[in-house]
Amino acid sequence: MKQTKTFIPTMREVPSDADIKSHQLLLRAGYIRQNTSGIYSFLPLGKKVLQKIETVIREEMEAIDAVEVFMPALQQAELWQETGRWYSYGPELFRMKDRHNREFALGATHEEVITSLVRDEVKSYKKLPLTMFQIQTKFRDEQRPRFGLLRGREFIMKDAYSFHASEESLDVTYQDMMQAYTNIFTRLGLNFRAVIADGGSIGGTGTHEFMALSDIGEDTIAYSDNSSYAANLEMAEVNMDYDKSDERLKEMEKVSTPEVRAISDLVTFLGVEANRCIKTLVFKADDAFVVVLGRGDHDINDIKLKNVLGAEVVELADEVEVKKLLSCEVGSLGPIKLPLELKVIADKAIASIVNGVCGANEEGFHLMNVNPERDFAVDRYEDLRFTLEGDTSPDGNGTIKFAKGIEVGHIFKLGTTYSAKMDATYLDENGRAKPFIMGCYGIGVSRILAAVAEQFNDESGLKWPKKLAPYQVHLVAVNVKDEIQKELADELHKLLKSYRYEVLYDDRPERAGVKFADSDLIGLPMRITVGKKATEGIVEVKFRQTGETVDWQREEITEKLQAFFGAE
Amino acid sequence: MKQTKTFIPTMREVPSDADIKSHQLLLRAGYIRQNTSGIYSFLPLGKKVLQKIETVIREEMEAIDAVEVFMPALQQAELWQETGRWYSYGPELFRMKDRHNREFALGATHEEVITSLVRDEVKSYKKLPLTMFQIQTKFRDEQRPRFGLLRGREFIMKDAYSFHASEESLDVTYQDMMQAYTNIFTRLGLNFRAVIADGGSIGGTGTHEFMALSDIGEDTIAYSDNSSYAANLEMAEVNMDYDKSDERLKEMEKVSTPEVRAISDLVTFLGVEANRCIKTLVFKADDAFVVVLGRGDHDINDIKLKNVLGAEVVELADEVEVKKLLSCEVGSLGPIKLPLELKVIADKAIASIVNGVCGANEEGFHLMNVNPERDFAVDRYEDLRFTLEGDTSPDGNGTIKFAKGIEVGHIFKLGTTYSAKMDATYLDENGRAKPFIMGCYGIGVSRILAAVAEQFNDESGLKWPKKLAPYQVHLVAVNVKDEIQKELADELHKLLKSYRYEVLYDDRPERAGVKFADSDLIGLPMRITVGKKATEGIVEVKFRQTGETVDWQREEITEKLQAFFGAE
Repeated sequence: MKQTKTFIPTMREVPSDADIKSHQLLLRAGYIRQNTSGIYSFLPLGKKVLQKIETVIREEMEAIDAVEVFMPALQQAELWQETGRWYSYGPELFRMKDRHNREFALGATHEEVITSLVRDEVKSYKKLPLTMFQIQTKFRDEQRPRFGLLRGREFIMKDAYSFHASEESLDVTYQDMMQAYTNIFTRLGLNFRAVIADGGSIGGTGTHEFMALSDIGEDTIAYSDNSSYAANLEMAEVNMDYDKSDERLKEMEKVSTPEVRAISDLVTFLGVEANRCIKTLVFKADDAFVVVLGRGDHDINDIKLKNVLGAEVVELADEVEVKKLLSCEVGSLGPIKLPLELKVIADKAIASIVNGVCGANEEGFHLMNVNPERDFAVDRYEDLRFTLEGDTSPDGNGTIKFAKGIEVGHIFKLGTTYSAKMDATYLDENGRAKPFIMGCYGIGVSRILAAVAEQFNDESGLKWPKKLAPYQVHLVAVNVKDEIQKELADELHKLLKSYRYEVLYDDRPERAGVKFADSDLIGLPMRITVGKKATEGIVEVKFRQTGETVDWQREEITEKLQAFFGAE
Repeated sequence: MKQTKTFIPTMREVPSDADIKSHQLLLRAGYIRQNTSGIYSFLPLGKKVLQKIETVIREEMEAIDAVEVFMPALQQAELWQETGRWYSYGPELFRMKDRHNREFALGATHEEVITSLVRDEVKSYKKLPLTMFQIQTKFRDEQRPRFGLLRGREFIMKDAYSFHASEESLDVTYQDMMQAYTNIFTRLGLNFRAVIADGGSIGGTGTHEFMALSDIGEDTIAYSDNSSYAANLEMAEVNMDYDKSDERLKEMEKVSTPEVRAISDLVTFLGVEANRCIKTLVFKADDAFVVVLGRGDHDINDIKLKNVLGAEVVELADEVEVKKLLSCEVGSLGPIKLPLELKVIADKAIASIVNGVCGANEEGFHLMNVNPERDFAVDRYEDLRFTLEGDTSPDGNGTIKFAKGIEVGHIFKLGTTYSAKMDATYLDENGRAKPFIMGCYGIGVSRILAAVAEQFNDESGLKWPKKLAPYQVHLVAVNVKDEIQKELADELHKLLKSYRYEVLYDDRPERAGVKFADSDLIGLPMRITVGKKATEGIVEVKFRQTGETVDWQREEITEKLQAFFGAE
């Protein structure tokens, strides 16, 4: 493609409204333009990258027998009313009316539409399992669109849905998807992790997120430095053997601790280590109070607590409630001599505390040399805390480290959440109607474009992985008015095209400096520059990833190109 | 693709709400499903055909240096307000509000968006011409969605827009598009005509429609049986030499014609031929009255009259106005002795009438032996009538025939209609700001799917052209429980895939009759049936287009396949 024929509006200045690298560079290099808040046009370079992403996704979906469909963006409100999401989805769901005043949702996701389709057409277990996918524009009216393509209001997704007659069949497809996603992100060259995730509002029983690692990510991932274990911080298990000191159990002692309220006060005031302190919290779990104990250097994870208690809602009791319950301030709570009817649940780390410190349930006093079992009872020991960097990985291999990630894919076991509400059933072997067991599987196609740009760049511009670059080679004629240069460049353009390389040919009558700066900004894997040495049949080749430059003879170009691009 | 893995819900019954063949068959063969009025899901087979259409379009667009982009569906109202279309487009434009109460149009077309983009980014004539296209879902809230995909509310279009610094440059791109469109529809196997069209509400100076010929088409095309001339009926020129009889001019005679009002009454009552009668009409052209004469067997074309008069609005005067003007009923009008200030404009055919018949401007009377020039004056003779079948083609080659057509493509010269309103300008060689000269070019992608289905079918189902079929070969194992059949079918499936044929493999445990009926309905170009002769290594091959069936030896399959598919 000749650069004079295409549309690559580059910018020298960093756009003032773009605050992350990928957004700045995709704008500056002419890949995208903003239409209005959270809504973008993909310009020719951006569209080319999208197509490459889509091709890889399509191939991997087809490899696991997912079939492609294309469902509408305009979705009648009635469908969303069946699942109740018309009411629960909130203002993120764009809504509108047609000329006859009928209400529509603008497709934010397609569970309702596809469940309705399958409900109408699939009647027997013999037609299951069935997996369908589509690549399509989605609409979500984000409260605060930001980070360019990372959180927009109109974006491109691959969404897939599977239908099953058994949990085992869902498990098989879920594992197929896990592998397909791993293949996709690997082929795209993304630095990513598959992490155990929280089902969130979409519901379901098992779920993994695929995270592109990046400092600007909005999620924290806990991963092992020596295994494939990775989980969203909220979901990361702690499965550790805590060392228990063999020191002699001392006599419990009450000490005055004026002004001590937080663990950090205690550490300073008494000179004890935080890991000897017992943090005592009162939670309200679906209206019942429960006392929760954690070590002073640990934080309690609400989600784990909620799951352990099997509660719908879990929240900290407020000061008034605590005072009423235990006649004591929140800052002086401890597990000793609590009312018998109050359940006590402790993080596993508590069991290993010897001669610990806790509140005395009396304003201004703490107790020292407190020991579990001897001095207070615990109803259950559970994994209740957030993991920390340095913890042993729960699979026993390696230690935990933290990273930030951008969610680029998400797979869910939905179970019968949607099919039951929509009365979408098939007949089993015995002729009994049963709700479809479902899975759903998303990939943020346009988000990948940004995530890759975020991972592959330097101060001069983008640095595309070979498989994702809009073109493979940037052929630059330094001076198109120089006949010899022009002729060689034209010849190479033809040659490379005949070898099926994707070539962007800078045939513009611009200064060399402008061309090189644009070329670095656009970031194709290889630049072939036809300059003064054209007279000797020599071109300069620059590899964008390494910055390395070499001279190639005209005759050796095709062979060397193959060595470079064929290698992958 | 194994049929047990994909989703092809066929139906035996003709759906009651589908009244044309393509709609019925696309539903029955499991290519599409309706979600709600005018809104469809494309199932796996339908999606495959769409992708083939898109690939051909993409290749032909790229061949003329059109570059692909992807613009948003959510378009801020402000853009449409700039061109005034926010107010003039009417209820066909879906409108909505976001959570901040800002108004949006749901993309019905993208002139505003792309003009705004180019306005912001292209400042100099040096960057022109520039042609961009996209393939995308469009939304139009049709008053009466009908005919399945032919007139829906959400559909897929290819739209392209070109920007130029001169009319000559626009002409070049317009001709390129004309050729590209011709290539596209030819490659897709469509029976089509490029016809001269009316610009309609989108404005502009030159325009062609590409019509798929079909009896259910909503437009009438007048075309030559011996040249490439074709035009939408409204636009078809008449350029004929009319024979003028050399009979003697007779004396004008007033005759009583009670109850005669229409030409047909006159023909019956006086026994004259309609082509001797002079039809006299009074039109109001932008508030001025004008008398229009046409031959009794011809119909006046308002659009031609409007263009000839250079009027904004042209309509027939009503009876009250006529009576006030000429003191006479509409049914008795004639051109004799009209008030001098009234302009008389006649269709060219009138000049050749000898001894004609017309109204006497007196209720119940007509005049016979009326001759133009001798008995009445005509200010202008013009081409004012609709063409008729049998007319000489305006290019002099062949005679006119009529056909019905489905509009599948439309190319327009927009000129500066949009750029002027949106103040979208570039700087010319002399540094002067000038509005971009634009063209726009649409193809109804999902409509093609229906148009092809409408052209290629028989009573058993669809009959896809080779290039558009969702798969090339339908491999049918008659009895999957027969080991020899199953083995040979499995082997052929692998073999054909290894030769890169697209194969749909019916591996379902269904009766042979069901499989054959489904196969005819789905309509792939070739069916390879593995049945009882599998024991002899023989398969039956049926060509869907001709219905011909032959036996092939297993060994000769690949060679014969190549002969069939390679031939195109």
